[in-house]
Amino acid sequence: MRNISLVIAYDGTNYHGWQWQPGVVAVEQRLREAVQKVLDHETKIYAGARTDSGVHALGQVINFRTEKGIGLPNLAKGLNSLLPPDIRVMGASDEDESFHARYSARSKTYVYCILNEAFNSPFLSRYVLHWPHSLDIPSMNEALKWILGEHDFSSFKKKDEFYKSCVREVKRARFARRGGMIYFIVEATGFLRYMVRIIVGTSILVGQGKISPVDFKEILESSERERAGQTMPPQGLFLKKIKY
Amino acid sequence: MRNISLVIAYDGTNYHGWQWQPGVVAVEQRLREAVQKVLDHETKIYAGARTDSGVHALGQVINFRTEKGIGLPNLAKGLNSLLPPDIRVMGASDEDESFHARYSARSKTYVYCILNEAFNSPFLSRYVLHWPHSLDIPSMNEALKWILGEHDFSSFKKKDEFYKSCVREVKRARFARRGGMIYFIVEATGFLRYMVRIIVGTSILVGQGKISPVDFKEILESSERERAGQTMPPQGLFLKKIKY
Repeated sequence: MRNISLVIAYDGTNYHGWQWQPGVVAVEQRLREAVQKVLDHETKIYAGARTDSGVHALGQVINFRTEKGIGLPNLAKGLNSLLPPDIRVMGASDEDESFHARYSARSKTYVYCILNEAFNSPFLSRYVLHWPHSLDIPSMNEALKWILGEHDFSSFKKKDEFYKSCVREVKRARFARRGGMIYFIVEATGFLRYMVRIIVGTSILVGQGKISPVDFKEILESSERERAGQTMPPQGLFLKKIKY
Repeated sequence: MRNISLVIAYDGTNYHGWQWQPGVVAVEQRLREAVQKVLDHETKIYAGARTDSGVHALGQVINFRTEKGIGLPNLAKGLNSLLPPDIRVMGASDEDESFHARYSARSKTYVYCILNEAFNSPFLSRYVLHWPHSLDIPSMNEALKWILGEHDFSSFKKKDEFYKSCVREVKRARFARRGGMIYFIVEATGFLRYMVRIIVGTSILVGQGKISPVDFKEILESSERERAGQTMPPQGLFLKKIKY
């Protein structure tokens, strides 16, 4: 039995996130329909990350099993001819029997894009948070030092979401300015729901001088969601890469 | 009487071009509605270029007259609060009485974007021509030398479009590769309808080796539209800048 992985990019604007739910259109659904049509049999699809409604992906990874002998380039081409233009298969590989897009993942990297100019761009508005006010990037990066390493991230998760453990390991986290754009890059062993967007919201409070980097540390340690900043909107967020 | 100019950027995907026409939505219409609402009186709007359906702009320029004393930053902010997110005012200036967005223009620069990768991008598909085959850029640039300077561009215009003269002066024209993207940059005193898109279509024939750079020259000199290449799709085309 072959175990095939695909790297997928998608514009999340028109989708209710990755995961199939009744009554809405999710990326998973479109992909499963295309895979089953090309393979001509049903198969279960496993995904590396469950992106939320409106969140984009540059490097989502999925895997599925088949007995079909189809070549990988033809598989990718066939799927792209069936998928809508806002979902693309960027690559395909044969994996070991043990590979699982979700459980084999060693880390995930997300990028959050902030357009820090007076006016929003007609081309980027679906892909950025537009923030026309000044932000103190060095202070924001000072605050981020506190999330590096293993921590309980309960302060930075969706309120009603339940996890056995909220401990995750953050490997890198940094704001970087390039022209009018500010990129937040964060890599971790895993993420809680809304974690990236709440870290961005809380960092922006630091960037505005409303709280200090030490306040940020205390918010993290408090495990109280109420003390952290807003969940920033989904359209600035991209699942960049999953490492295996 | 003040004579105010605005620099406008827009995503042309959802518009039937710049110019107002009955029964369709054009960028001009949205802009005129917003300007008249902010000024609270009717005014005629003059535009630097009439972009076609689906063509984008980074630097469209318009001008209009008013007696109102509104500050330029407030004018731009007010307009952006009324305009849809795919149309943005990027700047505003007071001009001399004689300034006219169309007749004062000394040159216009357009860029045509070609994504030269195996698969299209879910984020760029509305902004590029996807061309998955190889292209010989040096040959294409050799062909372009023939359009530099003053020429009759009848071979490179929409068939039924009438002009008093089809002579235009091309100041620069070049294909440049940056990673997976190929940009065609062309600056001229003016353009005929579909001229950029037909030059791209004919250049691609050169890039594929279907015609030679000398054939390209002969097509230009023939003044026969039938001999030139296809009109390439509008979504790769951007009005980049108008010089005054």
